[in-house]
Amino acid sequence: MIRVGVIGGGQLARMMLPPAINLGLDIAVLAETENSPAAMGATAVGDYRDVDAVLAFAADRDVITFDHEHVPQAVLAALVATGVAVHPGPDALRFTQDKLDMRERLSALGVPSPEWARVENTEQLQAFLDGHGGAGVLKTPRGGYDGKGVRVVRSAAEAEDWFAAVAESGVVSALLVEELVDFTRELAQLGARSPSGELRFWDVVETVQRDGICAEVIAPAPGATSERTAEAEAIARALAEGLGITGTFAVEMFETADGRLVVNEMAMRPHNSGHWTQDGARTSQFEQHLRAVADLPLGDTESLAPVTVMANVLGGPLAGGLSDRYAEVLAFAPEAKIHNYGKSPRPGRKVGHVNVSGTDSDAVRARARAVESLFQG
Amino acid sequence: MIRVGVIGGGQLARMMLPPAINLGLDIAVLAETENSPAAMGATAVGDYRDVDAVLAFAADRDVITFDHEHVPQAVLAALVATGVAVHPGPDALRFTQDKLDMRERLSALGVPSPEWARVENTEQLQAFLDGHGGAGVLKTPRGGYDGKGVRVVRSAAEAEDWFAAVAESGVVSALLVEELVDFTRELAQLGARSPSGELRFWDVVETVQRDGICAEVIAPAPGATSERTAEAEAIARALAEGLGITGTFAVEMFETADGRLVVNEMAMRPHNSGHWTQDGARTSQFEQHLRAVADLPLGDTESLAPVTVMANVLGGPLAGGLSDRYAEVLAFAPEAKIHNYGKSPRPGRKVGHVNVSGTDSDAVRARARAVESLFQG
Repeated sequence: MIRVGVIGGGQLARMMLPPAINLGLDIAVLAETENSPAAMGATAVGDYRDVDAVLAFAADRDVITFDHEHVPQAVLAALVATGVAVHPGPDALRFTQDKLDMRERLSALGVPSPEWARVENTEQLQAFLDGHGGAGVLKTPRGGYDGKGVRVVRSAAEAEDWFAAVAESGVVSALLVEELVDFTRELAQLGARSPSGELRFWDVVETVQRDGICAEVIAPAPGATSERTAEAEAIARALAEGLGITGTFAVEMFETADGRLVVNEMAMRPHNSGHWTQDGARTSQFEQHLRAVADLPLGDTESLAPVTVMANVLGGPLAGGLSDRYAEVLAFAPEAKIHNYGKSPRPGRKVGHVNVSGTDSDAVRARARAVESLFQG
Repeated sequence: MIRVGVIGGGQLARMMLPPAINLGLDIAVLAETENSPAAMGATAVGDYRDVDAVLAFAADRDVITFDHEHVPQAVLAALVATGVAVHPGPDALRFTQDKLDMRERLSALGVPSPEWARVENTEQLQAFLDGHGGAGVLKTPRGGYDGKGVRVVRSAAEAEDWFAAVAESGVVSALLVEELVDFTRELAQLGARSPSGELRFWDVVETVQRDGICAEVIAPAPGATSERTAEAEAIARALAEGLGITGTFAVEMFETADGRLVVNEMAMRPHNSGHWTQDGARTSQFEQHLRAVADLPLGDTESLAPVTVMANVLGGPLAGGLSDRYAEVLAFAPEAKIHNYGKSPRPGRKVGHVNVSGTDSDAVRARARAVESLFQG
């Protein structure tokens, strides 16, 4: 029996439970709270920044993996020192923990990226803006999540508060600024890599953001040519091998107005852009993640339908939970697959998602949105 | 949040956990042992024949359902008296608890059945055999499971020990004998019915038995015509409505040499003949069972591939567990979906199953068998 430990009890850990049950892997979760989304699999409640709590949790595990990328390097180092396998490992995770480190590494790997700079003050920022059409995307290198810590600036003066925060932080000494890419849409390439080096990709997808949060994913990306697909996979392969990623990962890219792909962000864990695989692919990103971190052979990633669309449920009912709407929702769309994270609805919060499969992108997309909308208001 | 309680912690309860997690249903299991297959969902350990244990378990549940059909009528009656919903209900379950009651009811409903008789002694049995070609299938009316309590007899003298056991039992007063049906293959019709009366069926399947135990299921049944499919569904509909079944159920039928369908056995729960739906249908039998017992609208039952074959893993490795073979099995068949019940292998024991999908029945069947065989020896 392979014993997997997951640090963090959010919806990603929750969604690892079904494939762990199917495969008969012994899964345990270190959750932040008693009533976490992954409570059914939780064997301990504790803080992922607490070395003692993490080491106690990991004591009977063969491999440790993660619900999120926030476990501090010192805790990761202590885990590695115990001899337990840690996937993805600290040397890979550090790139998702610092966007400046990531940009430096991607540039070194020759991966297509927006132009970017490390800026320590408003003068350096203004110089970058002046050289890039007067605008840029300013990012805090650490702690950003779901669009927080990212903003578009058109004058360095707008960023004075952020530089003040940097000076006070004691954690970072600079900000990251990137050119404002003229893109037509966003794509994501999902893959998984095992410690043995096996690498598999799913179809490249289009992600649709609203207010900086992923709202929909269309798999495969409509109109993606075989050249585009190969290009997206080549970028993801370079990243996975160059950064030494293990487990499921996602590379978010801009498709530019002049026909290029450039890397926006990446995640070293199952990712929202891959939730469609739960119902739309032979092997889901969650099963694949478990297979990868356990260094088992990876599963087929073929799609089960011509099109699968995932729509996030953001917010949810004003009162009650998602299941209060099931009588209506399930009757309306018997073909929809509902994923409910067991969280209390709250404006803007990701509380679940819906997967719908079919043959026509526009029709399936409209259907998924219609199902999602029944959970709102 | 809908609170479902499952009595019994076997592999069927285990396989209800993933869809409960997906749908965000609050599921709890009353297991027989600490290390049951459904241990992750277990909230209590106790005996399903113990009224107090069952009532205590059910106290905070909205609906009670089952991993098996063995909960005594007295316990079921006590549950119903508390006001909790019980699905399937005692009035339906009693037919699966007594094969003579079932045969009487099916005959009353006009469902095509083998000829049968209630026999209290060897004289009555011999008379039946004499009238049916000198052979019959003798069954103990209660407690039979997976071929146990069923045997072919060609002379009433062979059954003297069984009649002696009946006389001593205090539980039953007769045996059931059925004609030996001249069948070419066995089919099964899986469906689900909600308390509101919604009824949905999956494709009719062929089941392949070895030594009286289900070894393979081929979905859909090769060569099944639309007439045959309609006939199987009509029989299952008559049974579901006639017996007042709620939840997932399966009707096992013989396809006779002269082209008829006759009902062999039935189950009022998710069934081995429906495990293929976990990977081969839009809605699995386990998700559908939960939707049905919670009286939610049922899901689409369409197949996701032209053919899906389920092969049971009977026995398993001589040493270790199924996962000890994963390096070999998963590398051999990246497309196979493995379901591991977390049980210790033992000759003849169902410890898991494999689902493989494709386009050609014979090829998919050979593939599923090849995967299954890698777990043996």
